[in-house]
Amino acid sequence: MTVHNNSGSLAIDNIGSLITNDEALGRGPLGIIEHASVVITDGVVEAIGPAGAIADTRIDAEGACVLPGFVDSHTHLVFAGDRSSEFVARMAGEPYDGGGIRVTTDATRNTPTSELDTLLRLRLAEAHQAGTTTIEIKSGYGLNVADEVRSLEVASPYTDETTFLGAHLLPAEYEGRADDYISLVCGEMLAGATPHAKWVDAFCETGAFDADQCRAVLEAGSEAGLGLRLHGNQLGTGPGVQLAVECGCASVDHCTHLTDADIEALAGSDTVATFLPAADFSTRQPYPDARRVIDAGATVAIASNCNPGSSYTTSMSFCIALAVRDMNMTIDEAIQAVTVGGAAALRRDDIGKLVPGSAGHAVILDAPTHHHLAYRPGVPLIRQTIGPLGDFAG
Amino acid sequence: MTVHNNSGSLAIDNIGSLITNDEALGRGPLGIIEHASVVITDGVVEAIGPAGAIADTRIDAEGACVLPGFVDSHTHLVFAGDRSSEFVARMAGEPYDGGGIRVTTDATRNTPTSELDTLLRLRLAEAHQAGTTTIEIKSGYGLNVADEVRSLEVASPYTDETTFLGAHLLPAEYEGRADDYISLVCGEMLAGATPHAKWVDAFCETGAFDADQCRAVLEAGSEAGLGLRLHGNQLGTGPGVQLAVECGCASVDHCTHLTDADIEALAGSDTVATFLPAADFSTRQPYPDARRVIDAGATVAIASNCNPGSSYTTSMSFCIALAVRDMNMTIDEAIQAVTVGGAAALRRDDIGKLVPGSAGHAVILDAPTHHHLAYRPGVPLIRQTIGPLGDFAG
Repeated sequence: MTVHNNSGSLAIDNIGSLITNDEALGRGPLGIIEHASVVITDGVVEAIGPAGAIADTRIDAEGACVLPGFVDSHTHLVFAGDRSSEFVARMAGEPYDGGGIRVTTDATRNTPTSELDTLLRLRLAEAHQAGTTTIEIKSGYGLNVADEVRSLEVASPYTDETTFLGAHLLPAEYEGRADDYISLVCGEMLAGATPHAKWVDAFCETGAFDADQCRAVLEAGSEAGLGLRLHGNQLGTGPGVQLAVECGCASVDHCTHLTDADIEALAGSDTVATFLPAADFSTRQPYPDARRVIDAGATVAIASNCNPGSSYTTSMSFCIALAVRDMNMTIDEAIQAVTVGGAAALRRDDIGKLVPGSAGHAVILDAPTHHHLAYRPGVPLIRQTIGPLGDFAG
Repeated sequence: MTVHNNSGSLAIDNIGSLITNDEALGRGPLGIIEHASVVITDGVVEAIGPAGAIADTRIDAEGACVLPGFVDSHTHLVFAGDRSSEFVARMAGEPYDGGGIRVTTDATRNTPTSELDTLLRLRLAEAHQAGTTTIEIKSGYGLNVADEVRSLEVASPYTDETTFLGAHLLPAEYEGRADDYISLVCGEMLAGATPHAKWVDAFCETGAFDADQCRAVLEAGSEAGLGLRLHGNQLGTGPGVQLAVECGCASVDHCTHLTDADIEALAGSDTVATFLPAADFSTRQPYPDARRVIDAGATVAIASNCNPGSSYTTSMSFCIALAVRDMNMTIDEAIQAVTVGGAAALRRDDIGKLVPGSAGHAVILDAPTHHHLAYRPGVPLIRQTIGPLGDFAG
């Protein structure tokens, strides 16, 4: 069920356990309030407290847990084509090297815009039903000027968090001419993308682009006024994390393989370490040890990385369960990572929490506490999502 | 959506990919037929083939994959109380030893029958929505004559596959008197349980019951006319598998830790090795290497083990994804394990497949192929479940 709460007021009553993500408001690091109500007016949290406030619409949470809508800060949702056979082959033992991105590029280029839009809406509806209320969407399956711009135009109506990822993988027609392609990305492609993008991103990995190529992309993007993000340290250690910190990226994503120096660099920066455990799941990578990163003092996020090659899931609940089981995160930390952590990775402070003045984006669980998101893996526990994606995707 | 198909005829048309589980009917080990229709009359598959058969009701599968309903051959669905705090503690580092079963026993004993029934129906509805159409349900949280019998009476209206598990864990009041408790289980408790149970089961594990105690329970159950099953080899190697084979159990469940001799024994028997990967997930056990067991020639099944302590999920899709990622099973093998494998673990040949004469229990996916059940982890891909559990739980 989708609630359109952009105008008028909505009260959620009879909340058994409300996660505010504000320690000043409630118990523990998640700022939990028992037996609470939330009033959302014109899409913004107006009040948190006892029931009884007047509102146009009321929802009875029936004692369930309510938490901020998930902030999915890393997705590749604009694509066409099928890569399930690549997944089957990988599960039968073939290694993952990212090369299959070209399959999606071919399919995406050859798909009419209206169909790309339809496919995107279906995925947004799925993400919304899974509790996501803010979603970052990257280009990166066009890999030429027209199709990168088109991908961003398709995504723009649905989110403010659009990311130009021209430097995703070298397209086949530039084989052996990576620097020429990077020049195109930094020049004409960036110029076309900038009006439709908030962020620029690059894939810094053996087999994709090296540190100098990625630095060139980030510097050109910064010059054009875009915020910076980077893919790094997915398939092995490498220069990604250090480059991201050096360039002041809002986030460096994957962070599966980190050296002590990488962790130190993250801890001394305001670059968020964004983990993508569903990609580690679907590529049989080891899971990152988030404990070391958190204990060092870095800010962490968890995102779905939804894409047809390495992580075809929109489920932030699934990511939470993996993080708790396999990344040495507590459930509280995993909840923070998919809410305020994701918000930090997008340099946003209006989302990821439920406090007066924040966005009225909320998830009502089919469960009494947030612990159930890890305790009940695979069970669709999102009873209702309240937030803007439903307006487009519902 | 629940379809009540116990009377009248139902046609499922426009199936993109139909899993029959009969190699003679279609392609590969799953017997896949593309572009098929299925006609179910009075709850039984009447025909498989091209569209056009006359039926009272029609469902358009819109090109999706249709497969046999999941057979979940191992659950503990009759319980009350909450164990989420035990889960939180375990994820924070406390080891799992099964001792928390007593918490559930206390809560179950103290819950009125009507409320146990309500709780069970909610869980059955959840399992049904997740694609399960046959479900085994154990007692084992009563642990006295009245409450074991009551648990089976609660389960009996919903499934033929009820299992008496009086030998689940030693109840607190028998501390230090395990053999006395086993005498009770084999005597008065079994006599009370038998009218409501098809199977008898015991938990053969350090901390639960030893091989001699479990053998006594199995022999008494067999004498009473019940079929045999056993929990074994969950937390370490032990006598469970060998005992199960020796006694002719239909299935030995967990099989997380297996020696070469265990695998050899399984391969030379008609005892099914049932894996419970969601329990390994939620207790941070290593995953079993199903490859060795399959390659040795044993029959394998996968079940949810849904229970509030070690595996609080009803999602067979989640189990499939784990089996493929972490147990060295192919997707085809995992699909077989949750359908015909589960049927074999219950010694049934009328379920787990879609062939003329078999039960008309089917799942329509929100996906074109069965591969998506592993390729899209955490995403609720069950569009519609057609089968009897919906009659009770819908």
